[in-house]
Amino acid sequence: MLVQKYKNMLSGKSVIRQLSEFATARGQEIGYENVFDYSLGNPSVAVPQEFTDAMIRLLQEKNPMELHGYSPSLGITSVREAIAASLEKRFGIPYRKEHIFMTSAAAGAIAHALRLVVEEGDEVLIFAPFFPEYRPYIELTGAKLKIVPPDTETFQINFTAFEEMLTDKVKAILINTPNNPSGIVYSTETVQKLADILRAKSAQYGHEIYLISDEPYREIVFAGVDAPCVSKFYENTMMCYSFSKSLSLPGERIGYLAINPACADAETMVNMCGQISRGIGHNCPPSIIQLAVCDVLDKTADLSVYETNMNLIYKELKSLGFTCVKPGGTFYIFPKALEEDSIAFCNKALKYDLILVPADSFGAPGFFRMAYCIATEKVERSLAALRKFVETEYPNR
Amino acid sequence: MLVQKYKNMLSGKSVIRQLSEFATARGQEIGYENVFDYSLGNPSVAVPQEFTDAMIRLLQEKNPMELHGYSPSLGITSVREAIAASLEKRFGIPYRKEHIFMTSAAAGAIAHALRLVVEEGDEVLIFAPFFPEYRPYIELTGAKLKIVPPDTETFQINFTAFEEMLTDKVKAILINTPNNPSGIVYSTETVQKLADILRAKSAQYGHEIYLISDEPYREIVFAGVDAPCVSKFYENTMMCYSFSKSLSLPGERIGYLAINPACADAETMVNMCGQISRGIGHNCPPSIIQLAVCDVLDKTADLSVYETNMNLIYKELKSLGFTCVKPGGTFYIFPKALEEDSIAFCNKALKYDLILVPADSFGAPGFFRMAYCIATEKVERSLAALRKFVETEYPNR
Repeated sequence: MLVQKYKNMLSGKSVIRQLSEFATARGQEIGYENVFDYSLGNPSVAVPQEFTDAMIRLLQEKNPMELHGYSPSLGITSVREAIAASLEKRFGIPYRKEHIFMTSAAAGAIAHALRLVVEEGDEVLIFAPFFPEYRPYIELTGAKLKIVPPDTETFQINFTAFEEMLTDKVKAILINTPNNPSGIVYSTETVQKLADILRAKSAQYGHEIYLISDEPYREIVFAGVDAPCVSKFYENTMMCYSFSKSLSLPGERIGYLAINPACADAETMVNMCGQISRGIGHNCPPSIIQLAVCDVLDKTADLSVYETNMNLIYKELKSLGFTCVKPGGTFYIFPKALEEDSIAFCNKALKYDLILVPADSFGAPGFFRMAYCIATEKVERSLAALRKFVETEYPNR
Repeated sequence: MLVQKYKNMLSGKSVIRQLSEFATARGQEIGYENVFDYSLGNPSVAVPQEFTDAMIRLLQEKNPMELHGYSPSLGITSVREAIAASLEKRFGIPYRKEHIFMTSAAAGAIAHALRLVVEEGDEVLIFAPFFPEYRPYIELTGAKLKIVPPDTETFQINFTAFEEMLTDKVKAILINTPNNPSGIVYSTETVQKLADILRAKSAQYGHEIYLISDEPYREIVFAGVDAPCVSKFYENTMMCYSFSKSLSLPGERIGYLAINPACADAETMVNMCGQISRGIGHNCPPSIIQLAVCDVLDKTADLSVYETNMNLIYKELKSLGFTCVKPGGTFYIFPKALEEDSIAFCNKALKYDLILVPADSFGAPGFFRMAYCIATEKVERSLAALRKFVETEYPNR
């Protein structure tokens, strides 16, 4: 008598989790420092000291009933105001607190954004390669997920396929730039073209098409890369943000949804989020973490290690003959495997204690992902293993 | 093009919130210390110092990447183990970590418990008087909410009505003891009878009927009151717990779902919760708060003030001629209004700066709720206002 749809989901094992379990087991055998684990996107640099200081100050100085009391369901007002002001200053979009809804990280933000605009029967488009959790996020709202195939030359948007799939049934598009797993950042040209198409199709179909922009990697953009703010290009944009990667605190689960003020009914939408929360058991993030994050809104952890790591890995991959688009941000790189079956490729890599993730579940079979959020010293040691793996297994590449 | 069901919910104004806003506005006029605000269930005593100390210790001593890193989606293993052990010691039920799922307080626990066992078209029964949020919690799963009318003599269960309503369509019962708003604790006799009926009807209908037991007030039980552990009486029980009231940290949003180990498929159910989370954007509670709460699992804030306040108010109400069942726990009391229309009654009370909540939205019109989680000194001062209100407005009661 248990609900079958959730029971059925148990049989689908996550490849990433299986690989991560392998890495842990192997680490117990040979020492974890000798396992080159590129499977998980867990930040590898410390939270800024200012966050820790803010937490301790709140605990020591603030009246505990006030500090730990219920916060309003949309988030603490002063925190929403500070986020709106920070976004306005940074992007020139006139956000006010009425456009900001505090969430349990990006997953919470996306759950609300989807429920604002899609219902059973509607379609939501995403672009391959994509973060695999988008599938349950979308399908469990009752909406239908459709996947636009990738442009594997650039990992920008495959507009030919997109325009064919953008039917009247599509109510929302979910994008992720900088992108997990490709590491690519959508260019100004890409975002402008996307916005133009959405605007034209909205007019043609006589209904809004909402753009849900998942931006947890916004702060991890490499030198010289064109990284436009999506919300500046398209009115009906909902920005989903998480502090997980920028502040290195993924376990503390804090983020927000920012509705573009130019969106029709923007303020109503934020109020509706409070109603959606009542149905899904969401609660705005813990009070103390809202307040502490608010103290470090314009700070980040020292994210420079990711660019250092990327450059080392990219250079080695190219020198080994891999086809690979150079990442513009994130802590992922997404090369083409050296044989058609990237699962077989990644399995062979395990023999060299290299944990690589095949990209089938990301919607780009034949590719693999490396999450290089590990110490640079370890990246350096891994390159010899990578070279040995490739030269031994693919001598005639 | 916004989803209508959530938009429609915006028009329903919460009576409690309106009263609370009135109290704030009035407080600005005459000083908040002179407003006798019995509207909100926000704990009025401080979190135990041990919790604050544990938080500071974690921040100062633990590796920040480990402290703030992703935790497993079911909760931190050591925390789940500690909760299982604490529950086993306390209630003699052999909980293991496999039966514990960490949640964003009781709302998160109930959202998962419901989705485990009910789908669109199923019925869920609740007993009046009830916490008004149960309505969106249940209705937004797609299930049908049915309300068993109250036994206004005792506020135990109205079994005659219950047995009539317990049809084959009912898949789950949601109860709340100690109860918000009545303050009543279900007796051993009540819980035993409820379990017997559920067991008999499950057998008759050939399917499980699950008991979802919402227990945020478990630690606030007054001297000499019979307060049985519901899970000990019925196998198919899911206990929904929150630390909000016991530790006075409602804003930090932490609780758990404990599936009775005797429940068919108990361990599968906890794993299914991880899948449900993916759909509703739930994330297990913040790592640091899981770890800090784990340090004070068997502690509570100093909850004795609530019993002190209850005794003062109950005595005064009785002396003024109110009909009122004496609360066995919580920080609520639930007297009968002195006229049939409790909204009119509570509106008259506002003239005396007494903020009382009419019980229409709790499913018991004619009654009103007082949340006496305020300082005893203020309770004492409020009694003169209460007496003046009653003697002036209802001289012939």
